[in-house]
Amino acid sequence: MSDTALSRVRIVLVEPAGALNLGSIARIMKNMGLRHLVLVNPQCDRTSEEARRMAVHAADVLEGATIAASLPEALSGCHRAIATTTRTRAIATALEPPKAALPWLLNTPSTEHSALIFGSEEHGLSNEALNYAQRFVCIPSSSEYASLNLAQAVAVCCYELYQLTQAPVQSAVSSPPAEDAIAAIDTLEDYYQHLETVLLKIGYLYPHTATSRMEKFRRLFNRAALSDPEVAMLRGILRQIDWAIENKS
Amino acid sequence: MSDTALSRVRIVLVEPAGALNLGSIARIMKNMGLRHLVLVNPQCDRTSEEARRMAVHAADVLEGATIAASLPEALSGCHRAIATTTRTRAIATALEPPKAALPWLLNTPSTEHSALIFGSEEHGLSNEALNYAQRFVCIPSSSEYASLNLAQAVAVCCYELYQLTQAPVQSAVSSPPAEDAIAAIDTLEDYYQHLETVLLKIGYLYPHTATSRMEKFRRLFNRAALSDPEVAMLRGILRQIDWAIENKS
Repeated sequence: MSDTALSRVRIVLVEPAGALNLGSIARIMKNMGLRHLVLVNPQCDRTSEEARRMAVHAADVLEGATIAASLPEALSGCHRAIATTTRTRAIATALEPPKAALPWLLNTPSTEHSALIFGSEEHGLSNEALNYAQRFVCIPSSSEYASLNLAQAVAVCCYELYQLTQAPVQSAVSSPPAEDAIAAIDTLEDYYQHLETVLLKIGYLYPHTATSRMEKFRRLFNRAALSDPEVAMLRGILRQIDWAIENKS
Repeated sequence: MSDTALSRVRIVLVEPAGALNLGSIARIMKNMGLRHLVLVNPQCDRTSEEARRMAVHAADVLEGATIAASLPEALSGCHRAIATTTRTRAIATALEPPKAALPWLLNTPSTEHSALIFGSEEHGLSNEALNYAQRFVCIPSSSEYASLNLAQAVAVCCYELYQLTQAPVQSAVSSPPAEDAIAAIDTLEDYYQHLETVLLKIGYLYPHTATSRMEKFRRLFNRAALSDPEVAMLRGILRQIDWAIENKS
């Protein structure tokens, strides 16, 4: 792993509301060799005096930030996404500390992009937003005051990412498909949409419960870190179900 | 090492000038189980609106901070002190990364206090101040922009200190949902048999290629470490496919 692996990691902030935080985040990103900041529907001005005050010599990271209208747009082209959360009840998957999960963002082919997603200062990430991530990081903290400031949480994660490019890296306990690369997030999203359509059609899902039930399937398949051929196999089943229903003798 | 070891570590800030930083530092300290903040000749007001704004629920750490007139006074009663610096030329001793040096602050008899010293935003620590430390920490950072914001530097060190008091955690890549146990192998086998039957029925599998194709699905689902409720959901889909084919209007 090298600095170039860092250059393929996006820091994605969903609806950030604090300009001071934006500035601090730009600075720590540049400190730690990260360049690509993506703001999803930002609620504050990255060009404000407060943002520039905290960015100091990282105004270029602020100015170069990409603005996205939605999280899927922010993740477009990414193959791996980790969400940061403290919401243990919101997801069935285990939360991991940064040291355990973050190497997975860097152990990628040189053509793949990764994302580390942070929620808003006030609300964190919604259940819907968590659906787009394959793994979930929670920064260990004291039960007396568990909630970190957004910029501090980003700092801890950027620091850990940078460490991974500096020292000899421990073997990441990762289990993506050995022979195949992980499917892109857009590819997975297309599969989930297809799955939902078919499950509604066969009467397994009802419209009013589809979202929560689909969340469970998303978690399950995200955990498996599907490859492109695997997604293709799964979609093949869906097409065949359609065919079997249409062609029942 | 335990949380009580953390309670004997002082965070010492020499002539801090930014009230926002003070507030952020109080917050991350409380997040990471640290309580004892010492301000040497502070150049800003810890009770200001800016400090409180960033401290949020750590106003108690701000209010409980000790004010000292000099660094020796701040270190009174301490047995171990580490200074943070980027000034490689100022000291003969080697600079260490946080991971290497910080455990030394916690590996102390229960009667001993330790200190981690940070300089001012503008000037860092003077040569004279460095004289009071036994070891020297430098947070690794990019040569493109090496200087961290004071509060971010404190955050990284507090985070590392807190990690040291937590049990080592292993990665949970393929681990099952936290609250559910991984399904028994028999349960999985029943699912795979059921899946194969349905896939043959809908014409997705052909008898002569079923085994090799099913191997791919087995690998995919085994990797996800399915729980019992998840297997039940997946079998529910299979039953519903059967139903949809039989009841096609």
